[in-house]
Amino acid sequence: MTEATRKDGRTVDELRTVTIERGWSDQAEGSALISFGRTKVLCTASFTNGVPRWKSGSGKGWVTAEYAMLPRATNDRTDRESVKGRIGGRTHEISRLIGRSLRAVVDMKALGENTIVIDCDVLQADGGTRTAAITGAYVALADAIEWARGKKFIGQRSTPLLDTVSAVSVGIIDGAPMLDLAYVEDVRAETDMNVVVTGRGLFVEVQGTAEGAPFDRAELNSLLDLALKGTEELAALQRSALETAAGVGE
Amino acid sequence: MTEATRKDGRTVDELRTVTIERGWSDQAEGSALISFGRTKVLCTASFTNGVPRWKSGSGKGWVTAEYAMLPRATNDRTDRESVKGRIGGRTHEISRLIGRSLRAVVDMKALGENTIVIDCDVLQADGGTRTAAITGAYVALADAIEWARGKKFIGQRSTPLLDTVSAVSVGIIDGAPMLDLAYVEDVRAETDMNVVVTGRGLFVEVQGTAEGAPFDRAELNSLLDLALKGTEELAALQRSALETAAGVGE
Amino acid sequence: MTEATRKDGRTVDELRTVTIERGWSDQAEGSALISFGRTKVLCTASFTNGVPRWKSGSGKGWVTAEYAMLPRATNDRTDRESVKGRIGGRTHEISRLIGRSLRAVVDMKALGENTIVIDCDVLQADGGTRTAAITGAYVALADAIEWARGKKFIGQRSTPLLDTVSAVSVGIIDGAPMLDLAYVEDVRAETDMNVVVTGRGLFVEVQGTAEGAPFDRAELNSLLDLALKGTEELAALQRSALETAAGVGE
Amino acid sequence: MTEATRKDGRTVDELRTVTIERGWSDQAEGSALISFGRTKVLCTASFTNGVPRWKSGSGKGWVTAEYAMLPRATNDRTDRESVKGRIGGRTHEISRLIGRSLRAVVDMKALGENTIVIDCDVLQADGGTRTAAITGAYVALADAIEWARGKKFIGQRSTPLLDTVSAVSVGIIDGAPMLDLAYVEDVRAETDMNVVVTGRGLFVEVQGTAEGAPFDRAELNSLLDLALKGTEELAALQRSALETAAGVGE
Amino acid sequence: MTEATRKDGRTVDELRTVTIERGWSDQAEGSALISFGRTKVLCTASFTNGVPRWKSGSGKGWVTAEYAMLPRATNDRTDRESVKGRIGGRTHEISRLIGRSLRAVVDMKALGENTIVIDCDVLQADGGTRTAAITGAYVALADAIEWARGKKFIGQRSTPLLDTVSAVSVGIIDGAPMLDLAYVEDVRAETDMNVVVTGRGLFVEVQGTAEGAPFDRAELNSLLDLALKGTEELAALQRSALETAAGVGE
Amino acid sequence: MTEATRKDGRTVDELRTVTIERGWSDQAEGSALISFGRTKVLCTASFTNGVPRWKSGSGKGWVTAEYAMLPRATNDRTDRESVKGRIGGRTHEISRLIGRSLRAVVDMKALGENTIVIDCDVLQADGGTRTAAITGAYVALADAIEWARGKKFIGQRSTPLLDTVSAVSVGIIDGAPMLDLAYVEDVRAETDMNVVVTGRGLFVEVQGTAEGAPFDRAELNSLLDLALKGTEELAALQRSALETAAGVGE
Repeated sequence: MTEATRKDGRTVDELRTVTIERGWSDQAEGSALISFGRTKVLCTASFTNGVPRWKSGSGKGWVTAEYAMLPRATNDRTDRESVKGRIGGRTHEISRLIGRSLRAVVDMKALGENTIVIDCDVLQADGGTRTAAITGAYVALADAIEWARGKKFIGQRSTPLLDTVSAVSVGIIDGAPMLDLAYVEDVRAETDMNVVVTGRGLFVEVQGTAEGAPFDRAELNSLLDLALKGTEELAALQRSALETAAGVGE
Repeated sequence: MTEATRKDGRTVDELRTVTIERGWSDQAEGSALISFGRTKVLCTASFTNGVPRWKSGSGKGWVTAEYAMLPRATNDRTDRESVKGRIGGRTHEISRLIGRSLRAVVDMKALGENTIVIDCDVLQADGGTRTAAITGAYVALADAIEWARGKKFIGQRSTPLLDTVSAVSVGIIDGAPMLDLAYVEDVRAETDMNVVVTGRGLFVEVQGTAEGAPFDRAELNSLLDLALKGTEELAALQRSALETAAGVGE
Repeated sequence: MTEATRKDGRTVDELRTVTIERGWSDQAEGSALISFGRTKVLCTASFTNGVPRWKSGSGKGWVTAEYAMLPRATNDRTDRESVKGRIGGRTHEISRLIGRSLRAVVDMKALGENTIVIDCDVLQADGGTRTAAITGAYVALADAIEWARGKKFIGQRSTPLLDTVSAVSVGIIDGAPMLDLAYVEDVRAETDMNVVVTGRGLFVEVQGTAEGAPFDRAELNSLLDLALKGTEELAALQRSALETAAGVGE
Repeated sequence: MTEATRKDGRTVDELRTVTIERGWSDQAEGSALISFGRTKVLCTASFTNGVPRWKSGSGKGWVTAEYAMLPRATNDRTDRESVKGRIGGRTHEISRLIGRSLRAVVDMKALGENTIVIDCDVLQADGGTRTAAITGAYVALADAIEWARGKKFIGQRSTPLLDTVSAVSVGIIDGAPMLDLAYVEDVRAETDMNVVVTGRGLFVEVQGTAEGAPFDRAELNSLLDLALKGTEELAALQRSALETAAGVGE
Repeated sequence: MTEATRKDGRTVDELRTVTIERGWSDQAEGSALISFGRTKVLCTASFTNGVPRWKSGSGKGWVTAEYAMLPRATNDRTDRESVKGRIGGRTHEISRLIGRSLRAVVDMKALGENTIVIDCDVLQADGGTRTAAITGAYVALADAIEWARGKKFIGQRSTPLLDTVSAVSVGIIDGAPMLDLAYVEDVRAETDMNVVVTGRGLFVEVQGTAEGAPFDRAELNSLLDLALKGTEELAALQRSALETAAGVGE
Repeated sequence: MTEATRKDGRTVDELRTVTIERGWSDQAEGSALISFGRTKVLCTASFTNGVPRWKSGSGKGWVTAEYAMLPRATNDRTDRESVKGRIGGRTHEISRLIGRSLRAVVDMKALGENTIVIDCDVLQADGGTRTAAITGAYVALADAIEWARGKKFIGQRSTPLLDTVSAVSVGIIDGAPMLDLAYVEDVRAETDMNVVVTGRGLFVEVQGTAEGAPFDRAELNSLLDLALKGTEELAALQRSALETAAGVGE
């Protein structure tokens, strides 16, 4: 399968160059500027002691996320959602996906009555923005939790993070399953799938859509194989970023 | 697997009672009141000759969908989105899912420069509203296309429908994969998956989410098996509804 | 006056066929699916113990209503108000009218600090939607009050309902006053009047508008005569619906 | 009936002091600052050659109105609707009422493809703002039509105004029907009615609402008698204002 | 400099006729209808005992302002911001400017935990609406403070007003600096500056903008000279208005 | 004056470290990531051939700007304006300021019927975001114009840029005028002024506000001296950035 090469020279089962600049922000409790090739997403984690009223008294914390794109992240300028006065369906959908993905690896009891909001702002978009956002958001989240531990908002023995989590896109192009689609590939894909996987290799989300022809069970299996390979590599990169000393923001 | 029974007496691989009241509306070009157990969704198809400006001159048609819930469809009253002045993320997400699912079985060239808007309004909700909506929407869509053929907006030899499409939810409850979750099951499910499948048994959408513990590959496979069984039965019910004479609205 | 016949064969002082399907909803505390000919309105009553903050401590309850129309209730599809992000003037006006009409027959002291919200959703529109809504809303309201009495939210000796209330449209077409206008009549009417009347025959609302030529006092009197006749018949139908056993929802 | 006196010394069938300052605005094509006692409404008419697209080619004109209140027109400050981001039901309802009332006396064919927008802004509110608005709006409208005739947008022989129109509120307070309610009366009224009448004494709108106890036919008749008396006097004041030389704005 | 005359006959350093009708409103705690030539702004001050939550317990008061324009204040009708559903940038900017200007002369400690909201509604616009608004707002503010002192919301020895404040526009037209621009001048100005000055001649705001060619330091100085002359005259007019007996509203 | 030092070690007339990373974006026609100390603003210029309809046929171009802040650019997280559904006054005001500042140095005739939209997104905020935005926006604008010249949208002999433009904040802290305020200084400043100056040293905007005590003419003059010194240095940095080879995005 790995013989076919792509426009950018990658094999079908190869990730783009992934970089994680941890601690990019001087202001946030955790942050990471992540890039999947030319896709760049700034992820910041804002920690607040306390929870929304509807969670109050539950002894549990809350993690949520908001995704957005700068107007000129894309090749053509997109109108700002703040100017339009409403958030589009795609933005809502991705924000909800990121939030669910992170909550899947958080023990809310261990987090205690604390809230973490993750903002994922796409500075430049070249396909895979939601998967880069999830992967970077995990790093920002992990740092915010360590920050809170340092401030004693979270106990020394509490381990709110049950596992790591990362995500990658896969798709079928001209009949061939491929890993981590760039924008030019994404628009041509017959089937497009985003897969969110924990460090232990379990699925958190599987979202596959036939953009062109519907797909059969064998294709689905090939895509899942690729996704598991990609997220395993991303998990290693996350671990490595979290082991090195963070930037100024820490 | 079929020995275990559920609260409502069903086996794990059994659909709820599904009824499709075709031609419910006197006004719409196509319509169906579908029920999956106590879940009731009114699907209407509005046919317009012509397409939105951005499609004009392409020779292709357009199919889109809007999903909404009456405020007291649910057990507790929900505020109207029209009163709140904005559509929530969940509504947007489901509207987009229904639209994509229908477009997957429509040949836009054969539809010609015509637009069909499908409205799916949940009159009563008891789990599976989006899957009932897709399944009923197909029936409304098929009738609207026949109506348009009768009015000569679509040629006699054109076959805009490439296949049928239906959807069902599956999930893992107490470790057991189950078909077509009612609301009380849905809230307890560790994993929840909505699967959209064509009449030929190909996947259009696979949307699986770990609400509790992440799931492994074997569980994913069991869920897909159930979904294929359920959508095969739904496809048969759709065919049967479309073969009988329609109601007053036709 | 009763000799002239109309397009649908009715005499000028004849209501359309009115049906009231009480207890349509499995979820609401009270509900009725009412039809005035092809006009169908689903009315649900949501009971909440407690009142809005501005009423708190007054010892009095609150009753309010919201009216809306499904996008394809009408002959041409109307854009959803939730999508437009604002509620139109007509919707607001009718919601306020329904709320006032119901409150006119409720003793708020006897209701106690409880809130009832009536949702009137027009599933199909063929003229007279606001009058059908008021007439059906009363039935849903009555059932919600009985439900609350069963749950002891309202005392056994309290009688929050002072009277019944129903409504009907009347209008002048080609110079002739007529009862209960269907849509094709409504658009041709020179004068259009909605009248809300209690079971005892007292006026709650009189809303007459000259759509074409202004009207004189004699015409006004003829319209009021018709309206009193129509609402008397509707009151009888309400009583009859409330005397029979309710549907599944009860 | 005229013996009983009111808080401000009026008899039950007496209007408050009504003044009409015609031509108040230097900018508008027609304008009037009208006062009913302490209620002051600035009415401006904006004339545009041409009609909205949906009227284009019909040979007919269009007249519409917008009503609003300054935040401190009332005794307690009200939040601006522009700040809230949405127009309330009451505002919508009154704007629609004013527009309908004016259109009832305009021959749209004679107006030709021209549009007149009437803005009624309440500078100070003390009851009866909608009736003062209609009465003042007529004067602004009449002046805008004369302005347009001067500019040859309307032919010399065209008579777009079929009649004059004015409005007054009536109500039942402590069982007694009264004319032109001030705010302190309005809040106490059991029944409140706004009546719009042409110069020839024909009804354009009759909007009666039981705020307290429902009303019977005899009470309704007494209220209509008062309303006809009041609007006859208002019509005379309108004629007198239009006969005198207008202000600076003309 | 004073030889050159303008379209309306003024010399370059001459204000338009300024009138201040104090106590115009019967409802507000302080009010002034101010005119700068044909520009007319109604300023009302609403006093409330208490402060917004974020100020509560601080012992300090709050003063804020809202600016708006009637739709036909201008030569062409402008759509209402309430109808558009959002407030434009210009409106926001001017509201903020008025609020800051007033707060600059208020000792919030001496005001105590009280809130004053100033509404400035432009009834007619002919240039300089924001400067007229600030100048009139001060008069309304001063009266509201005296009203509050009378009601003992403010102590007899407290002097919340540290100074008076007024504002004027200046600009460069055809190379010549001029005072208090009317609309026809404003649109032609190369540089436009609004200056807010206290009674003692100190600057609160200096907002100069090159609409055409950028301006040099000498021009800036000439404009500041004119502005100080104009605001000195306005301060005298404010004092004079506040010394005379107020209108009905007091 | 230069002896006094500040918290970050600067003298009163010293800028923070300013860096301009030209060509940061791979997508935009011009871009710059500018930093004034810890304040970081991403400026992108989007070039479109053609102008808004209201400019069409004028032979002139259009330049506009939008400013926004990421939610966690600040020390505490701010809610997104897209989520709130409306743009705040401050955002509007700064967007308008940036647009005006850029237009002051553009010859719209020479630009021809082309539109350039500059987006200034604050990634990290530490005071002076609007002045950094203007200074960076000029660089993005200049590059977009060169890009358009390369694409022949602008003629080889056209020189749409009349001058360079940059901006800096100045303020009075503890009585001492200072240049380029960081956030901790800004909140303490008695007077705060933003000054926009062309490369030739002419003023485009002077916006001074007394946050605490009003200021006198001498203080105003000192602030203007500092601003001219600062913008002269910024103009040199802009020239230097534009002379070096741009980044990947070019």
